[in-house]
Amino acid sequence: MSKVVLAYSGGLDTSVCVPLLEEKYGYDEVITVTVDVGQPEEGLDEAKERAESMGVKHYEIDAVKEFVENYLHPLVKANGSYEGYYLGHAIARPLIAKKVCEVAEKENASALAHGCTGKGNDQFRFETTYRANTGPDTEIIAPVRELNMTREEEIDYAKKRGLDVDFEEKKWSIDENIWSRSIEGGKLENPSYIPPEEIYEWTANPQKAPDTPEILEITFEEGIPTKINGEKHGPVELINKLNKEVGKHGVGRVDMIEDRILGLKARENYEHPAATALIKAHKDLEKLVLSRKQLKFKKTIDQEWADLAYNGLLYEPLYDSLNKFIEDTQKQMTGTVKLKLYKGSIYVVARESKNALYSEKLVSFDDKTIDQKDAEGALKYHGLQSRLSKSRSTKKDN
Amino acid sequence: MSKVVLAYSGGLDTSVCVPLLEEKYGYDEVITVTVDVGQPEEGLDEAKERAESMGVKHYEIDAVKEFVENYLHPLVKANGSYEGYYLGHAIARPLIAKKVCEVAEKENASALAHGCTGKGNDQFRFETTYRANTGPDTEIIAPVRELNMTREEEIDYAKKRGLDVDFEEKKWSIDENIWSRSIEGGKLENPSYIPPEEIYEWTANPQKAPDTPEILEITFEEGIPTKINGEKHGPVELINKLNKEVGKHGVGRVDMIEDRILGLKARENYEHPAATALIKAHKDLEKLVLSRKQLKFKKTIDQEWADLAYNGLLYEPLYDSLNKFIEDTQKQMTGTVKLKLYKGSIYVVARESKNALYSEKLVSFDDKTIDQKDAEGALKYHGLQSRLSKSRSTKKDN
Amino acid sequence: MSKVVLAYSGGLDTSVCVPLLEEKYGYDEVITVTVDVGQPEEGLDEAKERAESMGVKHYEIDAVKEFVENYLHPLVKANGSYEGYYLGHAIARPLIAKKVCEVAEKENASALAHGCTGKGNDQFRFETTYRANTGPDTEIIAPVRELNMTREEEIDYAKKRGLDVDFEEKKWSIDENIWSRSIEGGKLENPSYIPPEEIYEWTANPQKAPDTPEILEITFEEGIPTKINGEKHGPVELINKLNKEVGKHGVGRVDMIEDRILGLKARENYEHPAATALIKAHKDLEKLVLSRKQLKFKKTIDQEWADLAYNGLLYEPLYDSLNKFIEDTQKQMTGTVKLKLYKGSIYVVARESKNALYSEKLVSFDDKTIDQKDAEGALKYHGLQSRLSKSRSTKKDN
Amino acid sequence: MSKVVLAYSGGLDTSVCVPLLEEKYGYDEVITVTVDVGQPEEGLDEAKERAESMGVKHYEIDAVKEFVENYLHPLVKANGSYEGYYLGHAIARPLIAKKVCEVAEKENASALAHGCTGKGNDQFRFETTYRANTGPDTEIIAPVRELNMTREEEIDYAKKRGLDVDFEEKKWSIDENIWSRSIEGGKLENPSYIPPEEIYEWTANPQKAPDTPEILEITFEEGIPTKINGEKHGPVELINKLNKEVGKHGVGRVDMIEDRILGLKARENYEHPAATALIKAHKDLEKLVLSRKQLKFKKTIDQEWADLAYNGLLYEPLYDSLNKFIEDTQKQMTGTVKLKLYKGSIYVVARESKNALYSEKLVSFDDKTIDQKDAEGALKYHGLQSRLSKSRSTKKDN
Repeated sequence: MSKVVLAYSGGLDTSVCVPLLEEKYGYDEVITVTVDVGQPEEGLDEAKERAESMGVKHYEIDAVKEFVENYLHPLVKANGSYEGYYLGHAIARPLIAKKVCEVAEKENASALAHGCTGKGNDQFRFETTYRANTGPDTEIIAPVRELNMTREEEIDYAKKRGLDVDFEEKKWSIDENIWSRSIEGGKLENPSYIPPEEIYEWTANPQKAPDTPEILEITFEEGIPTKINGEKHGPVELINKLNKEVGKHGVGRVDMIEDRILGLKARENYEHPAATALIKAHKDLEKLVLSRKQLKFKKTIDQEWADLAYNGLLYEPLYDSLNKFIEDTQKQMTGTVKLKLYKGSIYVVARESKNALYSEKLVSFDDKTIDQKDAEGALKYHGLQSRLSKSRSTKKDN
Repeated sequence: MSKVVLAYSGGLDTSVCVPLLEEKYGYDEVITVTVDVGQPEEGLDEAKERAESMGVKHYEIDAVKEFVENYLHPLVKANGSYEGYYLGHAIARPLIAKKVCEVAEKENASALAHGCTGKGNDQFRFETTYRANTGPDTEIIAPVRELNMTREEEIDYAKKRGLDVDFEEKKWSIDENIWSRSIEGGKLENPSYIPPEEIYEWTANPQKAPDTPEILEITFEEGIPTKINGEKHGPVELINKLNKEVGKHGVGRVDMIEDRILGLKARENYEHPAATALIKAHKDLEKLVLSRKQLKFKKTIDQEWADLAYNGLLYEPLYDSLNKFIEDTQKQMTGTVKLKLYKGSIYVVARESKNALYSEKLVSFDDKTIDQKDAEGALKYHGLQSRLSKSRSTKKDN
Repeated sequence: MSKVVLAYSGGLDTSVCVPLLEEKYGYDEVITVTVDVGQPEEGLDEAKERAESMGVKHYEIDAVKEFVENYLHPLVKANGSYEGYYLGHAIARPLIAKKVCEVAEKENASALAHGCTGKGNDQFRFETTYRANTGPDTEIIAPVRELNMTREEEIDYAKKRGLDVDFEEKKWSIDENIWSRSIEGGKLENPSYIPPEEIYEWTANPQKAPDTPEILEITFEEGIPTKINGEKHGPVELINKLNKEVGKHGVGRVDMIEDRILGLKARENYEHPAATALIKAHKDLEKLVLSRKQLKFKKTIDQEWADLAYNGLLYEPLYDSLNKFIEDTQKQMTGTVKLKLYKGSIYVVARESKNALYSEKLVSFDDKTIDQKDAEGALKYHGLQSRLSKSRSTKKDN
Repeated sequence: MSKVVLAYSGGLDTSVCVPLLEEKYGYDEVITVTVDVGQPEEGLDEAKERAESMGVKHYEIDAVKEFVENYLHPLVKANGSYEGYYLGHAIARPLIAKKVCEVAEKENASALAHGCTGKGNDQFRFETTYRANTGPDTEIIAPVRELNMTREEEIDYAKKRGLDVDFEEKKWSIDENIWSRSIEGGKLENPSYIPPEEIYEWTANPQKAPDTPEILEITFEEGIPTKINGEKHGPVELINKLNKEVGKHGVGRVDMIEDRILGLKARENYEHPAATALIKAHKDLEKLVLSRKQLKFKKTIDQEWADLAYNGLLYEPLYDSLNKFIEDTQKQMTGTVKLKLYKGSIYVVARESKNALYSEKLVSFDDKTIDQKDAEGALKYHGLQSRLSKSRSTKKDN
């Protein structure tokens, strides 16, 4: 009996895949898997109900903690940002796909499927993980893309098959997990269209945010956020709490043009209050704790990390090598950062660490512990080649 | 007759240099030069009066337009930021020093002086420029550093010489030009001290900022900001106007730990409203106009540019080479960005450009101009080496 | 009447394309184009005769000078090397493809074709150039790949159509132009197989090379090689002469593993005597003339340049931007390098330039023009953060 | 009683330091330390005798194994090369300085000294290590530099003190350890002077090298060289053997312009036969085993590693972080490379590894396991932005 396991969200694209896999691809059994990475519970329940209504075996897998500890904590350490986007969905896909592979192994299925269309990024993230975790005999199927279906065709097909899906075209398409909420499509596709307030759900309208600024204190231990305002929180709880605290001040939005994997530019809107606060604080603490050379070079490392994460290349050997570098820099990253939140704005206002590469004595103006004259030698050599070079060009001008 | 030209700000450090250069260094004539790069007029007048009261020949040179066009415009194109600092003072020093060299040549002086102490960055920026613009016979003098004077010793000396300087110790030390205002020292040296509102002058207290958000539109032509809200402004006027418009919303502050040239970390506070808005808008427009490969690589270029600028190495041959790269990317950088300002917050909300590398048709979900199936081949090869690598490690585990 | 223009080499792959384009694709007229980039004349003649024998209109375009001046000179300036390969074929494809586009425009053809198969790099280089130089209506055709033909199928088809092609399977496949000769395939595919001497044609067997070393002097003017042993040569002549002079000493081979565009690794063997000598000399001269900062950063630039060139992305906007950087560094690159050639070995033994950033006075040990003590200050600050960091970890160990 | 420990080589510079430290600096006891990092035994013995003749306590510390395992093996993994120099002396200094610190601690000395002059690199490497390994109270002394002595003054002083040193000016100055031999100074300072054969000792004159090529096989295990021609060797023995085997073929010379730490360019000549073979083989094996992304990024890592090593910054936190990245890439680096040596030339001719990211099946031309047509999608997107960009500029030209 041929079995196929489908990554299932409960939406139109993945729902039409169920009958398609049976009818067009001839599988005897379709098994659906929904992975909980912090999306709204209604969504999980809806997926479950819909799967059941189609009479297929359904798995709902709670992977929130694994998501935070094994994917988001490394992301924070890497200040994970792709051109300004905190990679919330990008980094979740490989985890979801891995869970699908685990079900496939358990169920002894011979194929893996996903509902992605052919223009987006997620097909890359899913398939790369599928392929990395399975042998060459496992078939990988993307029905909507392979059949080149338009939305209209999908709706037609779903209606014919009597699927209980919400066919109404949304104003925009939403995706959310514990780390971020994305809003794209519809009028937002036009980069010059100013988004209306209604697209936001996690962040308050700054004009309606509290009238008093709030100082929020985040503590990191070896690069991992562990406390808010001095109080310890579990990894999942900490992010949930931050999303609320930071979001209520209207902080955590980004509106940007993004380069998708295939080379298309697209306008994207995101909400990610916890991510915004954590990465802002983390970067600030790094400036106190890491050496200048580490800081400068880590930017290059972080950029490459974000590129891999955006492309879903978590099984690329380079990903591990980068993480080894990053881990080493984070061993000293214990300390606390104070952020000021107010009506859409977020500012670092103070920070401290027992591992600060900072010496008040050396900085202050008036003492003589390091003799001022010690700078003199350094000065003569600073820019020595600039001088030689300048004299060279001057000479030639004559 | 031996002449020395001194870069003169009118403050304590540079004022004590005047008698020191005569008494301790034996120069017959000291000539002071103040260069206007947009600092407050009172400062310029004060410097002039003080120089005159000491009986030395004084130059006041208006270099604001040159500063904006030849130093700040390249900075905007390079998204000039050193770990978050927009380089306002760093980039002004080489211009000031160059003007001092020009006076020295005109006056036929045999020496150049500055009042920097031995711990900061400015000594590097001054001397590198001095050396690049003069022959090996020109003496370069830094009296305060060379005599290893403390602030107390400077005050003593100034009093003995009857200098009319303000001896009162300020709570913190301020420096400003058209691009930014820095506040450092005193209690601020402690990275965990939250700065009081009173340190800020260019940016309103966000709590007292206007209650209505403002949409501000900035237009760039080939990378250079030319219009605000559709209205053309001269280069100097545009920055002045932006400082006011943006600052009144409480936008443009940064509080950060900075790695100084000699390797010390220091806490710095800056206000730079125009810089904040311009660079935010410029970066956003780049995402619309530059190719993904340009964008990614330009980050490396921009980081190197900022490093040179921070170090005062504008005569390093690499500086020119980087600018050639940057200039080439900016040829297409014509377009408009809309920013939303409100009580300390600044967000990009829309952008457009006739040169956008963006095609609405390609991005939208429903058409078939590029066949969805075209992604398939790309997908099989994406992460091919990851897969080979994963299978390699799996094999070995057995 | 529908016309298609085919990039034509005269080999099996491109020859079967001619009837395929008529029969399978239904074109009324096939026009063949062979571009001379320095390959052996026999090959050009053979292509011409074969095209004529098939009764199609044939163009032979001499592009050698353009190849050297517009493609190889920038390559030398960029020390163009992809993991050790001097990019000879990679950089020629965009030029060949551009010439095909020019013929298509002149002939008013509606389609462009090439004979590349589906695993190599050249399909990318051809099609990217085709697409960049034509509108969306121009069809781009790769018959062998699209029909998924094996070599056996090609031979069958060619025989049926009566094509006068050499069907004999070669031991390895050869490709050559003025810059390099590649040998791949057959037994060479095995990375652990030691290649026999017979694969080499441009470079002498080192054991049979002259018994006396030769000193060869290459002069560059602004980064472009202009003289050999003090004698001026035209751009094409200079490379031809160097290939002979250097090759006769058995110098200019490389045996390597290369990462192809699609992600496959392949073993490649190249001969490129002129390239070897020119890039070795050019790099050496750069060390004398460029500043340390330029040198270090240019490595990053050169690596990116080589990546683009390898991928055939000469129309990527980044390519121009990189060249602007490189051009700026080359303005001072005038000078002479002496190479010693002997039985397979090549060594730089001397170099000189009027623009050297080198001062014999500063380097020599015994004078005091720069006081030895000037290093002291620099020393205290060198590694300051290392020290702070070390003391930090020591403290914590206690 | 005040004690100072001096890094002692037995040459003029360090020998004059002994009486200087007593007379000019007033130390009661000078202790000399010579660290064996593979230099010629005569040198070690001479140092010992000279120290004894001056009546000071002398330590001779054998650190060859530690040097190879903890310094050179990481160097090989990092393909350690600064602009072409394999860092032999640079990487030895921190080890020597560390050993001096250990003696100082054991002897309870209050000061550390070295004999470096004020223009070279070694003063940086020594002092940075001294400072990183001692507290702020330890004095660090560089007598020759601090007293600004010329060579003539040193000789005068040595003669007056009756030191038994070889005063004869050498034609050039030599330095050697197990990894390399450097030759600099004298006529060699002139970059355009062709060095005579006599400067070389480790490498045969290629003209007198064996008339038969030799195939040498080097095996790496996790990045560390362990076998020659299939025979296991201890770490020290392996390098010694390679120096002989490779050197006898005249292989392992480099003649180059180097940028010293202070910014001066200098001409340097090195012999390092083992290093040449090991790094050539190691790089080749990396191309077979590492992923393309690892390879590309590791170049950036390796360059930064070499910069730190050249500057003696082994205690910079970045050094450890880079090594963590590198270590991770080396876990798969087990395999064998064949080199061909002949009269000054060295070529890789074959390589193999059980961890090769290479699949003969995928590369070969004729099979269909991956369908040729799979490349098509990848092709349409390759250079998509180049095409958009080209069409943009064309449009504007009209």
